[in-house]
Amino acid sequence: MSKAVEPQLLPLVRYQDLRFPDDHVFTLASGKALKGLVIRYECYGKLNAEKSNAILVIHALTASHHAAGKYEATEKRAGWWDTLIGPGKAFDTNKYFVICSNNLGGCNGSTGPNSIDPATGIPYGMNFPEICFADMTNAQVLLMEALGIKKFHSIAGGSMGGMIALLWSVMYPKKVENVLGIACTSAQSAQSIAFSEVARQAIMSDPQWHEGKYFEKNLSGPLKGLAIARMLAHITYLSQEAMKYKFGRKLSDRKALNPSDSPFEKNFEVERYLHYQGDRFKDHFDANSYLYMTKALNYFNLKDGFESLSQAFGQSSVRYLVLQYSSDWIYPKEMGLELVQAMVKANREVSFFEIESKAGHDAFLLEWQKTGNIISAFLRGAGYALKTEGIDVVSKKQGDEEKRQDSLSSKRGMQRRDFEFINSFISQKEKARVLDLGCGEGSLLVYLRSEKKVYAYGVEQQSFLASKGLRKGLSIVQGSINECLPLYREKSFDLVVLSQTVQQIVDPDKVIEQMLRIGKSIVVSFYNYAFYLNRLQFLLKGKKPRNDAFPDTWHESKDIHVMTIADFEEFLKHQKLRILNRIFLKGNWKSIAKFSPNLFAGSAIYHIKREENEDSK
Amino acid sequence: MSKAVEPQLLPLVRYQDLRFPDDHVFTLASGKALKGLVIRYECYGKLNAEKSNAILVIHALTASHHAAGKYEATEKRAGWWDTLIGPGKAFDTNKYFVICSNNLGGCNGSTGPNSIDPATGIPYGMNFPEICFADMTNAQVLLMEALGIKKFHSIAGGSMGGMIALLWSVMYPKKVENVLGIACTSAQSAQSIAFSEVARQAIMSDPQWHEGKYFEKNLSGPLKGLAIARMLAHITYLSQEAMKYKFGRKLSDRKALNPSDSPFEKNFEVERYLHYQGDRFKDHFDANSYLYMTKALNYFNLKDGFESLSQAFGQSSVRYLVLQYSSDWIYPKEMGLELVQAMVKANREVSFFEIESKAGHDAFLLEWQKTGNIISAFLRGAGYALKTEGIDVVSKKQGDEEKRQDSLSSKRGMQRRDFEFINSFISQKEKARVLDLGCGEGSLLVYLRSEKKVYAYGVEQQSFLASKGLRKGLSIVQGSINECLPLYREKSFDLVVLSQTVQQIVDPDKVIEQMLRIGKSIVVSFYNYAFYLNRLQFLLKGKKPRNDAFPDTWHESKDIHVMTIADFEEFLKHQKLRILNRIFLKGNWKSIAKFSPNLFAGSAIYHIKREENEDSK
Repeated sequence: MSKAVEPQLLPLVRYQDLRFPDDHVFTLASGKALKGLVIRYECYGKLNAEKSNAILVIHALTASHHAAGKYEATEKRAGWWDTLIGPGKAFDTNKYFVICSNNLGGCNGSTGPNSIDPATGIPYGMNFPEICFADMTNAQVLLMEALGIKKFHSIAGGSMGGMIALLWSVMYPKKVENVLGIACTSAQSAQSIAFSEVARQAIMSDPQWHEGKYFEKNLSGPLKGLAIARMLAHITYLSQEAMKYKFGRKLSDRKALNPSDSPFEKNFEVERYLHYQGDRFKDHFDANSYLYMTKALNYFNLKDGFESLSQAFGQSSVRYLVLQYSSDWIYPKEMGLELVQAMVKANREVSFFEIESKAGHDAFLLEWQKTGNIISAFLRGAGYALKTEGIDVVSKKQGDEEKRQDSLSSKRGMQRRDFEFINSFISQKEKARVLDLGCGEGSLLVYLRSEKKVYAYGVEQQSFLASKGLRKGLSIVQGSINECLPLYREKSFDLVVLSQTVQQIVDPDKVIEQMLRIGKSIVVSFYNYAFYLNRLQFLLKGKKPRNDAFPDTWHESKDIHVMTIADFEEFLKHQKLRILNRIFLKGNWKSIAKFSPNLFAGSAIYHIKREENEDSK
Repeated sequence: MSKAVEPQLLPLVRYQDLRFPDDHVFTLASGKALKGLVIRYECYGKLNAEKSNAILVIHALTASHHAAGKYEATEKRAGWWDTLIGPGKAFDTNKYFVICSNNLGGCNGSTGPNSIDPATGIPYGMNFPEICFADMTNAQVLLMEALGIKKFHSIAGGSMGGMIALLWSVMYPKKVENVLGIACTSAQSAQSIAFSEVARQAIMSDPQWHEGKYFEKNLSGPLKGLAIARMLAHITYLSQEAMKYKFGRKLSDRKALNPSDSPFEKNFEVERYLHYQGDRFKDHFDANSYLYMTKALNYFNLKDGFESLSQAFGQSSVRYLVLQYSSDWIYPKEMGLELVQAMVKANREVSFFEIESKAGHDAFLLEWQKTGNIISAFLRGAGYALKTEGIDVVSKKQGDEEKRQDSLSSKRGMQRRDFEFINSFISQKEKARVLDLGCGEGSLLVYLRSEKKVYAYGVEQQSFLASKGLRKGLSIVQGSINECLPLYREKSFDLVVLSQTVQQIVDPDKVIEQMLRIGKSIVVSFYNYAFYLNRLQFLLKGKKPRNDAFPDTWHESKDIHVMTIADFEEFLKHQKLRILNRIFLKGNWKSIAKFSPNLFAGSAIYHIKREENEDSK
């Protein structure tokens, strides 16, 4: 492991404005134009000479360009992702140059509904043209050009910011290397659209809204409506469980309920919190901007203009990380897996993680340690990707360290003879596509990558193992085998491996069926329960055999199935599967067992495919 | 099975008002009084001579006394639970006399904020005294007395109606036999409180609300605010999945999105639906009533006045059914299990079912077939309960039919000798408490009930099996063994049975540990894998043995563990458990295997307890 760098504070930050002249025309996707565009942004870290270390971070619905650091040392709060951006942090400003701009249409410095319309000299209000995520992306392209950056190392964002990050890779696949879509989706669900319509109605029903012209009459604006909108949004950002833990049924005045109180004189703590959030928000956010932004969010659909979501990802060579949180009920896991499925279908390298959290959607801000670990691993893994073009910011020295670690892993792997055999089943000289189901920390895949430069994909349920694989540049989907197999399309891998795992799977026949669907050929390896020592032990003792291969007692064992070579061969015959290779290892798991394998082999490795004439069935 | 009765239409229904004189004083829980109370109600079916067949049905937040039937044959819509109430339906009006009244504080005929205050001659508005669920219950008691009913056969309700039904059993345990709490909870969660506060703010921020005095000035009232409140409520009544299925991202005008459209000129179908629901609601519901009702809902806590929820249920001899729906995210399964746990702790007979549904909270109205089946089974089972007092509305003839069916089940059961042995382990002459884990349709429990009059409880994951047990009057928790065991408190059963199921359970040691915690003694039975024929088969063939006891192939088998008598004995020894009885049956599973059971026994039945001196550990 490389030495851990203690995270440090960023120096005081300041925002800057990219200001275009009044006659500059920025054309929107709708065909309408904005003149005299302003983009407010902040930068952290240093752009290297090659301008290859820039990371664009994109903010969510109501945040701003102030992503990290403080303007004054005495400030209480730092930027919204300060936990992740800084020296030694996940987005390490010692390595990377991090940029964040206020989204177009916002109200924190970039051009938006509360900006002065140069044509009239008063704020746009509802005369602001409709904007969409493509417009926000294009405004960021202008900023990119102004900074002289040709290609972003990475673009990352959470929630709406994640959606715009994904859109970047679809609109400008050549302008970005890695995209991190965190707590987001390809398109808002009906439920989210519904919530935001209630929020807009609360604003637009407020008589102080005045059709958006509250500035003209020097009025306060729809502060009540905006507060209600924010209260509602906050409920969706938390989870049922988080609210139970944070507030439960506590009363705001800490008194017990008394039946003689008027019900309208007393409040629950959760009500007080929402009112506080609503009040705070209405003082620093513009109601019209909220209307435009939520509409843009609802109308965003990543697949617009394409036949399918996978086609949208078809143009890019971008490497993706999709990250969801277990209690995020507005963008639940399935939405992340839908993205992954489309990316996989488009042959993109993609890793997926679901972080366990009770914090709800807010987890992308609150669970910064777990999130930071995954982001670090993904960025570190970027240096490994088998790319013909692209920018590697991992220095030579760091790279060597990683390679040394890999070779250590490989050496451990080498002790398992099956790695060698599996390698021998791959006919391609390089770039074979291999999927390892239950890949652990990816030792087999790293071994195969070093031997054959395979494109290495893994599925692993254990997050701590999966993140080790991610660090090595593997594409890892963190999840169960049963839930991940449907993500992959027909024959999308040259080899699909299920190594010493088949006995622990519910419905192994269905898993093998799926493996044959997605793989041109498959490998299944297992310990042979019918090994003669097991048989004798069972005959004589009448107990579950226990030894190196089957170490557990009857109640500890995670093996669901008794696997024997004879049973497996019968299964293959019944399924009419063709055995391409079969290797039987003796009880030492090294030497080949040549005779009566079901009696003398301790383990078996099968390389199988479906008969060609069965393919068409 | 008794012949299925084809459901028929109710005759046209009409509501009635129970009207107290103007000087009648109804005292509220707060100490305040309402004069001249009116309770509007409807009845379906006929009250029998003994007045023992009355079922009170309680409506949810915004519904009314009009639960079933139509006022005019030409009406489009019938009452809100018409699918469940009527001749041959779940609440069968050929058998039962069903009553539903408008809740106190509502706006559909019973006294509420829009009623005329006799003291002033104008509507109460916000001068209406605060009311709580106890007041609504007490109003229903007045109705009960007016109808001359001493005890309800059952009280049932969904959502808020279910909560009031539960409260009935706590406030008046002698006045009700069976309670059906459907899609409800013991107290609103922080999330639900939060949603309803947003809704109230929308109403109270509407300038047309006029502090609730919108009637005085003959104004329209806070129609916009009320519509927003209803829109929000509707989102919580549906599920993410239901909204996806029902609306997805469809546009209301069926056009594709065009970037040149103004985002405020076009709408999604889900937005149109919400506006329709909001508009419809504001025309027939009183805003002040909504404020009072949601406050009463939030302040309701079933355990108020008790040390714990289980103490609240401690006074009653009521038999409960708790019913939840899988996609109901405002009252999720855990809330139902919390109720069950408290009821079980209070020694109540309780059955629990979770109905699979995508419909969200609305499932209690929409999933009427599945709901009706469970309700029918529960009401049918009421005739079986081992009660020393109480009313049995199942006629003699029907009862005989049920007994015949039971004896059939028992006969099938008798073929399994283990039923007899398990019966012999019960020392009590009657009313032993027995829990059968994985009880199927309850054959063992029915057998034990007929032999020893045991209080019979079962846990069964399969809904169709569990509902058969419910029909037989057993208390069944439909769920997995692992999720149900924590519901039961220490030593709450005389015998806990795990029959032929241990081999299919993950972590059987933990399950046995839990069984020993909740049971004074336990039974574990299994097929002996070390039976000599299995051993020989495995020695000679080197395949997973297959026969009557182990019929499946290696990949079909649901057995997670290899169970042998030797392994199990070793486990018992290691756990320092005392064997009270052990029965070994030969391969015919009838005759006793006397010698070398691990070799010659096809199955084994263990009756076990923890050593007394281990108890204190």
